[in-house]
Amino acid sequence: MDGRRWKVWGWGCEGDGLEPAEAQRLLQFYDERFGLADRPGSAAPKVEDVTLRAARIAPPAPLAEICSIAPYRRLLHTYGKSFPDAVRAFAQDFKDAPDVVAAPRSEAEVVAILDWATDTGAAVIPFGGGSSVCGGVDPVVGDGFAGTISLDLKGLDQVLEVDRASRAARIQGGILGPALEAALKPHGLTLRHFPQSFEFSTLGGWIATRSGGHFATLYTHIDDFVEGLRVVTPAGVLESRRLPGSGAGPSPDRLIIGSEGALGVITEAWMRLQDRPRFRAAAAVAFDDLMTGAGAVRAVAQAGLYPSNLRLVDAAECAANGVNDGSFALLVLAFESADHPVDAWQARALELVQDHGGRALADAGAAEAWRTAFIRMPYQREVLVPRDLIVDTFETAITWDRFEAFHDRVTSAVEQAILDATGAAGLVTCRFTHVYPDGPAPYFSFHAAGRAGALLEQWRHIKDRASDAVIEGGGTITHHHAVGRDHMPWYQRQRPALFGAALAAAKRALDPAGILNPGVLIAGPD
Amino acid sequence: MDGRRWKVWGWGCEGDGLEPAEAQRLLQFYDERFGLADRPGSAAPKVEDVTLRAARIAPPAPLAEICSIAPYRRLLHTYGKSFPDAVRAFAQDFKDAPDVVAAPRSEAEVVAILDWATDTGAAVIPFGGGSSVCGGVDPVVGDGFAGTISLDLKGLDQVLEVDRASRAARIQGGILGPALEAALKPHGLTLRHFPQSFEFSTLGGWIATRSGGHFATLYTHIDDFVEGLRVVTPAGVLESRRLPGSGAGPSPDRLIIGSEGALGVITEAWMRLQDRPRFRAAAAVAFDDLMTGAGAVRAVAQAGLYPSNLRLVDAAECAANGVNDGSFALLVLAFESADHPVDAWQARALELVQDHGGRALADAGAAEAWRTAFIRMPYQREVLVPRDLIVDTFETAITWDRFEAFHDRVTSAVEQAILDATGAAGLVTCRFTHVYPDGPAPYFSFHAAGRAGALLEQWRHIKDRASDAVIEGGGTITHHHAVGRDHMPWYQRQRPALFGAALAAAKRALDPAGILNPGVLIAGPD
Repeated sequence: MDGRRWKVWGWGCEGDGLEPAEAQRLLQFYDERFGLADRPGSAAPKVEDVTLRAARIAPPAPLAEICSIAPYRRLLHTYGKSFPDAVRAFAQDFKDAPDVVAAPRSEAEVVAILDWATDTGAAVIPFGGGSSVCGGVDPVVGDGFAGTISLDLKGLDQVLEVDRASRAARIQGGILGPALEAALKPHGLTLRHFPQSFEFSTLGGWIATRSGGHFATLYTHIDDFVEGLRVVTPAGVLESRRLPGSGAGPSPDRLIIGSEGALGVITEAWMRLQDRPRFRAAAAVAFDDLMTGAGAVRAVAQAGLYPSNLRLVDAAECAANGVNDGSFALLVLAFESADHPVDAWQARALELVQDHGGRALADAGAAEAWRTAFIRMPYQREVLVPRDLIVDTFETAITWDRFEAFHDRVTSAVEQAILDATGAAGLVTCRFTHVYPDGPAPYFSFHAAGRAGALLEQWRHIKDRASDAVIEGGGTITHHHAVGRDHMPWYQRQRPALFGAALAAAKRALDPAGILNPGVLIAGPD
Repeated sequence: MDGRRWKVWGWGCEGDGLEPAEAQRLLQFYDERFGLADRPGSAAPKVEDVTLRAARIAPPAPLAEICSIAPYRRLLHTYGKSFPDAVRAFAQDFKDAPDVVAAPRSEAEVVAILDWATDTGAAVIPFGGGSSVCGGVDPVVGDGFAGTISLDLKGLDQVLEVDRASRAARIQGGILGPALEAALKPHGLTLRHFPQSFEFSTLGGWIATRSGGHFATLYTHIDDFVEGLRVVTPAGVLESRRLPGSGAGPSPDRLIIGSEGALGVITEAWMRLQDRPRFRAAAAVAFDDLMTGAGAVRAVAQAGLYPSNLRLVDAAECAANGVNDGSFALLVLAFESADHPVDAWQARALELVQDHGGRALADAGAAEAWRTAFIRMPYQREVLVPRDLIVDTFETAITWDRFEAFHDRVTSAVEQAILDATGAAGLVTCRFTHVYPDGPAPYFSFHAAGRAGALLEQWRHIKDRASDAVIEGGGTITHHHAVGRDHMPWYQRQRPALFGAALAAAKRALDPAGILNPGVLIAGPD
């Protein structure tokens, strides 16, 4: 980190954002669709302008050094990076700010914070990079607590041990993506887990949310890279044995992976790593439309080739991101290897996509344009929200047999919801972020012209209908964005009720007072 | 099934077993080491000679049709196929025989059986093929139950639905391997999960025990093939959504996978399938010793090539199985694909193993010999146990950095334990069944000359020391044989205590009366 402050209202550090040319292209896109003449935009909130409730709890003296009630810290920990988070931040609504931000530098200090929280009846919200887009870090915990503590884990930021032979490392949970990769690089190793949030999210956060990463196939989620975990719970420390594989009962790690801070705080993980790739092949392939491309993607996904990239973007989404003029759907296809040239792999994959209606583009410029757009996307929100544009995404997974009907159902539902909520037509686009032999992970974006003062309500209507369509169509409420607070009602519809009961029982064993991220994954007593 | 009865004392059907030449080679191997002159062998037990305790419980009239107290059925359900199971069976010790064997033909009948068991205070032991080698199906449940019901699920044997587009099928849990593959074949599909027990084990059993299968790399366990599950618990039915991938909370399936009948009865699963392979390459490679071979295997496992076979067998185990004369360790290396020739893959893997001291053998005969020996192995026990030979296996997984020291520690411990238990030297051999980028799954065999009447005690001493060495050396108590009753003490040492508490809490939610496979995975109240 270069010491610059992270924004409390948007992505990245203060001073960073879209370049003027990027912002201009983006605004032109929306101006053509919705007209922006009467939407000049509003200024970002200033820390000093926000009124904060007085902190309701105060740390005991021994913890004072690692606890802060400074307004900037509290504001930074009030929200993740979701659309409603940004709307509320721009409205200077920080009423749910945590009372205290605790920043432990060691596992012992994590334990001490949990002990204090238990004693004082406060809720603890584990906080890595705070890049949640589903309300996973918002301290909205109901009235049953004396206060809220946002537990910032970024002080646990070390790679503690590297095992070159097994290609694994023991790493603290609070390390940010760039620091993690920098520490592994001298060993010739890499985790190669690059979610869109990579710069501003942590290893522990990736594990807690089953984050999706770099690899479009095979190693899609962080799950498979976890070799062992160390987790602080209010009931004590849970440490699983580091093993390349095991069949001894249900996997302990798989209970923690995806537990979203509700079962414990991930302080360390043994992670499976990769050698740094030396061989690469990449291609950009055009399709007439998404469904034609989907057929090709299915063929590649079922061929046992395991490309690192197999991302399909529909024509409208290409246009929205300035990747092309909207005349074709784009497939980015790539292989990489640390061991061998990947020509045979790439050749066969290209054969398959061409057999399924794909046209290999002469240069891979479109693929590079997509990659750049992808990385810059999170900065768009701070340009769009002040102009009352409702632009958000949601993502899921569905088997191939149901994909086309599912896509139509979800798209129609969201289009209708936009019309209902805003009175005007919007835009719904789709891409695949990850692909499995048995189905894709479709990622939808929606774009609508909202109304000042009604943004949250309009967004909520659209989001609710989208979530209904996803669940009723047979999908998952999230493939890699986690459940958080925003997805809970649909997660509860999706989840087998008895699994919910088992999970709640497990929580009572690990977190008897229910202080960890209350309301996430496990509802209160009901 | 051809209507022949399964043996109550050994592997397979009555009338099947080793061919005379196979038995002769096997006995000659042991005769050379231990001398078999005074070990003529004893006859297999006859059903009619066994005295059985009277059944302590009787099914209610509506269930009488699917329940049996016939001696043959009760004997068949008394044991799995472990070494101590065989010793007790040959000794006509069936004192723990289940009171009733229930054979439901539908999920509704499974529910009815569980209801009856709850009402009557009986324990229920789910039973697929009964091929457990760790006491997973033995009705040894302590004194807290009115009786024991072995729940034979082989009546649930249908493939219910095939989704060709997603390459998946909905399949009942009680189907045996051959029937499953036969039903998929007309669709051009295959599960390709071939544990050694394939002929005599069921899909539900594979899932409940995290069975290891055909693929030596990548898709090692059944785990990754599970797309969704339907499970009958005493608290109701738990059905997970079929999804190609999800990030919505901890995976419900992963709580059930490996639950060994202690949380519920797997009645259906949506399984991910493969196209039937059309392209293959196979090679046999010789190494001076296991450790040299291990280096080569590590290189291949870390190269991202994903061979279907990568099985390394040490020289002594080759000799014990008549695969070679014991002068070299053997690596069986193979690739397969339904989509493309695998020459590039095989060429690179061969390059790697040759760079690491491997010598490709001119013909793959040794590989074929190993495969045949592997399939026939379970029949050896009925030849060896009657001669009081203690021959058993155990398996584990360990990271590469620790493998050599671990191998030495385990081998020494078992050699010493054999000497202590029998007064004479035995033989300990090792192979890899599955391999990961971060470590192998070593599978050990031990061979000792036991003493009539002391076999169980001698075996127990050796097994205990082996399990101690595995756990103290950092391994897992099982990679794919499950925990059962035999591995419980070591599983409890391996498992994080708080995960044990969470699992016990989950069991209380799903099986409040604790009637399902008591003593397996979750100890009684303590």
